[in-house]
Amino acid sequence: MRKKVPLHPNERVDDLINQDLHIIQSDEVFSFSMDAVLLSRFCSVPYRGRIMDLCTGNGVIPLLLTARTKASVTAVEIQEKLVDIAKRNVQMNNLEQQVEIIHGDLREMTTTYNGHFDLVTVNPPYMPAQTGDQNKNSHFAIARHEISCTLEDVIAACGRMAKSGGKVAMVHRPSRIMDILFLMRKYKMEPKRIRWIHPKKDAEANMVLIEAIRDGKPEVRVLPPLIVYNEQQQYAEELMEIYYGKGEREQ
Amino acid sequence: MRKKVPLHPNERVDDLINQDLHIIQSDEVFSFSMDAVLLSRFCSVPYRGRIMDLCTGNGVIPLLLTARTKASVTAVEIQEKLVDIAKRNVQMNNLEQQVEIIHGDLREMTTTYNGHFDLVTVNPPYMPAQTGDQNKNSHFAIARHEISCTLEDVIAACGRMAKSGGKVAMVHRPSRIMDILFLMRKYKMEPKRIRWIHPKKDAEANMVLIEAIRDGKPEVRVLPPLIVYNEQQQYAEELMEIYYGKGEREQ
Repeated sequence: MRKKVPLHPNERVDDLINQDLHIIQSDEVFSFSMDAVLLSRFCSVPYRGRIMDLCTGNGVIPLLLTARTKASVTAVEIQEKLVDIAKRNVQMNNLEQQVEIIHGDLREMTTTYNGHFDLVTVNPPYMPAQTGDQNKNSHFAIARHEISCTLEDVIAACGRMAKSGGKVAMVHRPSRIMDILFLMRKYKMEPKRIRWIHPKKDAEANMVLIEAIRDGKPEVRVLPPLIVYNEQQQYAEELMEIYYGKGEREQ
Repeated sequence: MRKKVPLHPNERVDDLINQDLHIIQSDEVFSFSMDAVLLSRFCSVPYRGRIMDLCTGNGVIPLLLTARTKASVTAVEIQEKLVDIAKRNVQMNNLEQQVEIIHGDLREMTTTYNGHFDLVTVNPPYMPAQTGDQNKNSHFAIARHEISCTLEDVIAACGRMAKSGGKVAMVHRPSRIMDILFLMRKYKMEPKRIRWIHPKKDAEANMVLIEAIRDGKPEVRVLPPLIVYNEQQQYAEELMEIYYGKGEREQ
């Protein structure tokens, strides 16, 4: 049952894919995208325990995770405007008991979080700070570019917060894979499952899902490719299932 | 036109896929496999120049490369019995002007080869020396296991022999990808193109093709997945094209 929460100008409430969930979005800040949906389905969630979501934005990943687990979810966002939306998203969906939104900087989190989580998820800014067309709107720029944190800041934080044997799951661009793998090893996470996402079956990958284990042993599996569009330019069957299906696809 | 060469007991002459090429095989030594065929099509060949094939076995990759390029091909094999077959393969196909087979150990090659090649290809032993069911037949064991050379020996040799800006192309198992990527960077090769091979579209990858550039800049592309079998359990269209088609598929 959706609870009424105050909406600011330019905000709207959208349905959140197949779950009985709703989400506040705004054209003034970054909207959730397929990346977040795929990551929230890809990661191996503990049934109970503790999950941390870094760079949470409007809190879409915590919301989606609550459909898969009873674990408590802590989520951190550096942008105050997004923290405000994320908090109202939690209220609107009656998830205050399970999800906590924190306004904070992942580089400076309390040490009580160190080694604390069974799973850390993150959909970080994709682009190095100095590249690309930086959006004039700083909310977009911070979400897209490594302005408030570098890839190394993000991966170091994942490594600090995951408990030994805990999982770390990330979505990113394929072009950064070398840096991601190197940094994961540097901070003691061993990649175990990789899934490449291709817009079409004959197209290069444009996204990658990676799950590592803190202090894990080397040996990585490369899952079946996830193809987004079929030859009729429609969502491929697996995507339809992820967006509109009932079942969980544990991989 | 195939030239007659002496055949030893247990040897036979097979057609080498779609090219007008033939190859001596023997049940007593390692036969060429799909891995070699895919690698010889995947790598970016120089039109002219110099190519080195390490761990060449019966010389299948040099034979296949001659269908794509006028470049000279030097090929190294440590097992005398395979060197003998590879040399007769070159003679049988009238390729003595283009392909030279050398009996040698890639750990101890002449320094005149250093920085000498536009492309280095390698289909190395896949399994660490101490693992798996080592075949009693030492010819198989050396081809499959890292007995005569480790993965690091192989990648170090690739890095020594490729010229700056030259390519290094390898086929291997996905489970070793972390080691491969780390060792490539250690020896100054930057992975640029990766292609995962899946037996079926919904199966995990069981092979990977990697091409790196000596002294290249970081930025890797992940090509469309190569799916071997279609839903009718037949070779998928692209595989048919590679094995029986006329065209080259440059990627």
